[in-house]
Amino acid sequence: MQTAIMIFDGLTALDAIGPYEVLAQLPGSEVRFCSKEAGPKRTDSKALALTADYALAEVDSPDVVVIPGGEGNRPLLRDQEVLSWLRDVDAETRWTTSVCTGSLVLGAAGLLEGKRATSHWLYREALREFGAEPVAERVVADGKLITAAGVSSGIDMALELVRREHGDELAQSVQLAIEYDPQPPFDAGSPEKAPAEIVEAVSAFARRNWPSVA
Amino acid sequence: MQTAIMIFDGLTALDAIGPYEVLAQLPGSEVRFCSKEAGPKRTDSKALALTADYALAEVDSPDVVVIPGGEGNRPLLRDQEVLSWLRDVDAETRWTTSVCTGSLVLGAAGLLEGKRATSHWLYREALREFGAEPVAERVVADGKLITAAGVSSGIDMALELVRREHGDELAQSVQLAIEYDPQPPFDAGSPEKAPAEIVEAVSAFARRNWPSVA
Repeated sequence: MQTAIMIFDGLTALDAIGPYEVLAQLPGSEVRFCSKEAGPKRTDSKALALTADYALAEVDSPDVVVIPGGEGNRPLLRDQEVLSWLRDVDAETRWTTSVCTGSLVLGAAGLLEGKRATSHWLYREALREFGAEPVAERVVADGKLITAAGVSSGIDMALELVRREHGDELAQSVQLAIEYDPQPPFDAGSPEKAPAEIVEAVSAFARRNWPSVA
Repeated sequence: MQTAIMIFDGLTALDAIGPYEVLAQLPGSEVRFCSKEAGPKRTDSKALALTADYALAEVDSPDVVVIPGGEGNRPLLRDQEVLSWLRDVDAETRWTTSVCTGSLVLGAAGLLEGKRATSHWLYREALREFGAEPVAERVVADGKLITAAGVSSGIDMALELVRREHGDELAQSVQLAIEYDPQPPFDAGSPEKAPAEIVEAVSAFARRNWPSVA
């Protein structure tokens, strides 16, 4: 099974690495990190580069495509080369997926029209602009489209993909291999669960520092 | 606060990226990916390179050090340059941490002597070779030493570090920003929770394919 993970300058690293770590464990798995142009791509914090070994043109029939989020993906919403590539590969994928604001790129490519989908909680409502029905769930599957919520949710999304594609036993084996037995010190990982003042503080920070959709 | 994340060829990407994504969110945070020699480092699957911007010699007084795991770290257990650097920086850190088999490297540097510590469940008992007391918990703090279990546990470890260093509100804010509200499709992420036949299958696979400690 070949997985294409499309990266770009300004990506959020965990959006890409969560699904990568799950999917790379599968027997016979090949993961190709790709980008408009091959080479190192800086993350949103600027502290790290991940290398795209492949240009998009070199990845033309992946079984799975993963689109991560991060402030750097906003220019992709108007990048016809990227959107056209995405439509072309989606026509043949078994699974087309996104993490965090990666779903905005799927939306801009026209792939969310009439679909149930999700995104980072701060950007979920923006999915309506692309004809999607926003869903406040961590992993949302609609046919072969699987979108995930913010940043860390790509791990859960990829495990769900493995469960659907390969069955319960392999999904459990991967979960155990990466020891995914989450025990965060607080139950504050969603706006429904976090204290109201924390939700407001993060929302205010994001309004000041994170780019809007357009 | 400066965080040094030491990477190397053959690392497990999520071990490094989990803590990175948490710690990079902190106000005034600087994360330096470092390695014996600066440059791109291939992950254990070979599908990806992460770039170390700094050589070890360029990172001499980090507040936090993170040592990830991955099969590629076994040569580091006998690498005097790495072990010496680790002892030197540990003398001044606020927090010295590891994820997965990264704790073996801390052990080889002599930093686990008489300490409670953990590692990936398949390598936990090996910590005794370094004078540590293995603990079957996801995140184990002993003074300023914080070791974490396998692969994905670095997210929980880093959130715990933020809680201890900066308090509950900032830890909750980071958790919400990265939407860490885990919902794996199974409760199979530790050997105590996974079905026995899954534990045996992963153990057998690891015996065939993963390197031992020495």
